[in-house]
Amino acid sequence: MSNPSILILPGDGIGPEVMAEVRKVIDWFGAKRDLAFDVSEDLVGGAAYDKHGVPLADETMAKAQEVDAVLLGAVGGPKYDVLDFSVKPERGLLRLRKEMDLFANLRPAQCFDALADFSSLKKDIVAGLDIMIVRELTSGIYFGEPRGIFEEGNERVGINTQRYTESEIERAARAAFELAMKRNKKLCSMEKANVMESGILWREVVTRVGQDYPEVELSHMYADNGAMQLVRAPKQFDVIVTDNLFGDILSDCAAMLTGSLGMLPSASLGAPMANGRPKAMYEPVHGSAPDIAGQGKANPIACILSFAMALRYSFDQGDEATRLETAIEKVLADGVRTADLMGPDDGTPVSTSEMGDKIIEAL
Amino acid sequence: MSNPSILILPGDGIGPEVMAEVRKVIDWFGAKRDLAFDVSEDLVGGAAYDKHGVPLADETMAKAQEVDAVLLGAVGGPKYDVLDFSVKPERGLLRLRKEMDLFANLRPAQCFDALADFSSLKKDIVAGLDIMIVRELTSGIYFGEPRGIFEEGNERVGINTQRYTESEIERAARAAFELAMKRNKKLCSMEKANVMESGILWREVVTRVGQDYPEVELSHMYADNGAMQLVRAPKQFDVIVTDNLFGDILSDCAAMLTGSLGMLPSASLGAPMANGRPKAMYEPVHGSAPDIAGQGKANPIACILSFAMALRYSFDQGDEATRLETAIEKVLADGVRTADLMGPDDGTPVSTSEMGDKIIEAL
Ligand SMILES: CC(C)[C@H](C(=O)O)[C@@H](O)C(=O)O
Ligand SMILES: CC(C)[C@H](C(=O)O)[C@@H](O)C(=O)O
Repeated sequence: MSNPSILILPGDGIGPEVMAEVRKVIDWFGAKRDLAFDVSEDLVGGAAYDKHGVPLADETMAKAQEVDAVLLGAVGGPKYDVLDFSVKPERGLLRLRKEMDLFANLRPAQCFDALADFSSLKKDIVAGLDIMIVRELTSGIYFGEPRGIFEEGNERVGINTQRYTESEIERAARAAFELAMKRNKKLCSMEKANVMESGILWREVVTRVGQDYPEVELSHMYADNGAMQLVRAPKQFDVIVTDNLFGDILSDCAAMLTGSLGMLPSASLGAPMANGRPKAMYEPVHGSAPDIAGQGKANPIACILSFAMALRYSFDQGDEATRLETAIEKVLADGVRTADLMGPDDGTPVSTSEMGDKIIEAL
Repeated sequence: MSNPSILILPGDGIGPEVMAEVRKVIDWFGAKRDLAFDVSEDLVGGAAYDKHGVPLADETMAKAQEVDAVLLGAVGGPKYDVLDFSVKPERGLLRLRKEMDLFANLRPAQCFDALADFSSLKKDIVAGLDIMIVRELTSGIYFGEPRGIFEEGNERVGINTQRYTESEIERAARAAFELAMKRNKKLCSMEKANVMESGILWREVVTRVGQDYPEVELSHMYADNGAMQLVRAPKQFDVIVTDNLFGDILSDCAAMLTGSLGMLPSASLGAPMANGRPKAMYEPVHGSAPDIAGQGKANPIACILSFAMALRYSFDQGDEATRLETAIEKVLADGVRTADLMGPDDGTPVSTSEMGDKIIEAL
């Protein structure tokens, strides 16, 4: 049997630097744990635009469809701000999500004990925080038609369409209930059913799916109140499920609560492929951080933890994922810190590659 | 000349209780400061539904169009959750906003010194915080067509439409720039121009309006990053301008940062009327809080500060507004607290009406 395959798309900004550390980790698992992967690498985002004039080449898209898992670094940078909407770096990412049909975006917001002080929130509010946000990722206002800027009378109008079918809501909800079953069996669904009909349908379908999960305690919250409650008392949540746009904002809000932005991974999962594995892409929650790119300052942990999620969700290697996560916790407990994890008076930070090396050592 | 007119719509939940305290304050200004108002009162939300079968009667709508300012308490409650979308309490509020064409919703997020400890954020992150969020209030996905739940093949689809014309963006932007000119001359506009064409048009129009305000330092931020930055370092902002839906979420997030939710007022302003005053409605940021309604526990300050905003923005009585705000600060500095402003071991809270009385005393 051939090895499972991984396509690495480092992308822009700090993407290539942090991905180099992930490769070390992948190699370690091949050499020491008999878990070899066939790894290939390609371009996405601005890097792809520079070479091909598009943020994702068709051949790259085809490769992504064939592999067992995609690992993505980050896309975007000021250099590309002037580009036309249709070829902006983000379109490459959105094309991957859409064409691979990665409908369930899992975004853990976890506060690492060693880092709780980095949160802007009081320590007791966030210490031990462990939320999972499930964001619908292939529909809603990100992809709905009609969309565009049109002439109307003697002015222009900008239009986007929020659009959710029952089956789109259902599969995202099901993914969230399944996760809740493996966690603390609490699910909160967020929408604006008080002002949007798409939110009414969302609430109705989530409620119906909930009948298949009687053990899960289901609640509903308006998304604006959701933002408030995340700030006020985030530990009230276990799993949250919400649509593409609310998920974008609420998951970023939740990520920032932890103070551990450079530490947060994500998984985007689709339907099972012929081999039983889900279509899957893994990426850190942080962006391309152009201000520190190329300086060896970036924290590779979010990207390495994204590979841990791949071990768990794509390759059924939960124990190996835990091994990797534990190694990272150990390194942090030892006081090893990249610059983003330090206060001004906390001594000398390690570089991106030193952090990678320390994690390999701990493994 | 007749007195300026105010229509009071207490609404549901704690609305009537907090509004009773506002009436005391209005009466005080009439008796002591020679500022008499013609005050009338009517129903909105669930209270209107109970009497008329609709959340806002046509006669009430007509009255709201005629008065100089509307003061609204809060709408909604679990009793009305089962109602059809078209007659839910929220529809009364949305009808007022839309038909009065109140396009600029001003939501200050201010952290009161005496209350900084109540924030879930660290004190140094929020102490002295003073942001103004300008939310577009009459367009976007709240009102765009097509909208509804439709049959499609053998399932249903929920649709809402985000829709912004150049002139709608322009007038909201102008209101925000005008405010920035009176404050610290910094404006941050938030959208998702990286994924939504309506966001591209938004950014373009705001930038163009900015040419009329060369003194204002204008920046743009994606709304998801905006949520992060609000949590990370809210004091970086002065005025924020954003659309109806992002404004709903981001302003609630900002409000919760302050720890002073029971203290935050808002103003919703439209075009000038024949008498030069803007169409205007004032309401607290908090909701109807059905869990504590009728118990005399609610904090009336947000609603009283909404009247202070009315003094400032509708009646050109900035000095009297400041007088009222100063009285409230004094009462807080004296340690007078409603239950929401106290920890479990902080002694005995005052009731809603005692808080009102203390403010009158301080005046
Ligand atoms: C880069 C951008 C297109 C993307 C989004 O809006 O989904 C990002 O913010 C995210 O959350 O992954
Ligand atoms: C009550 C509701 C319709 C309203 C809104 O969504 O605008 C509220 O959340 C607000 O922010 O004023």
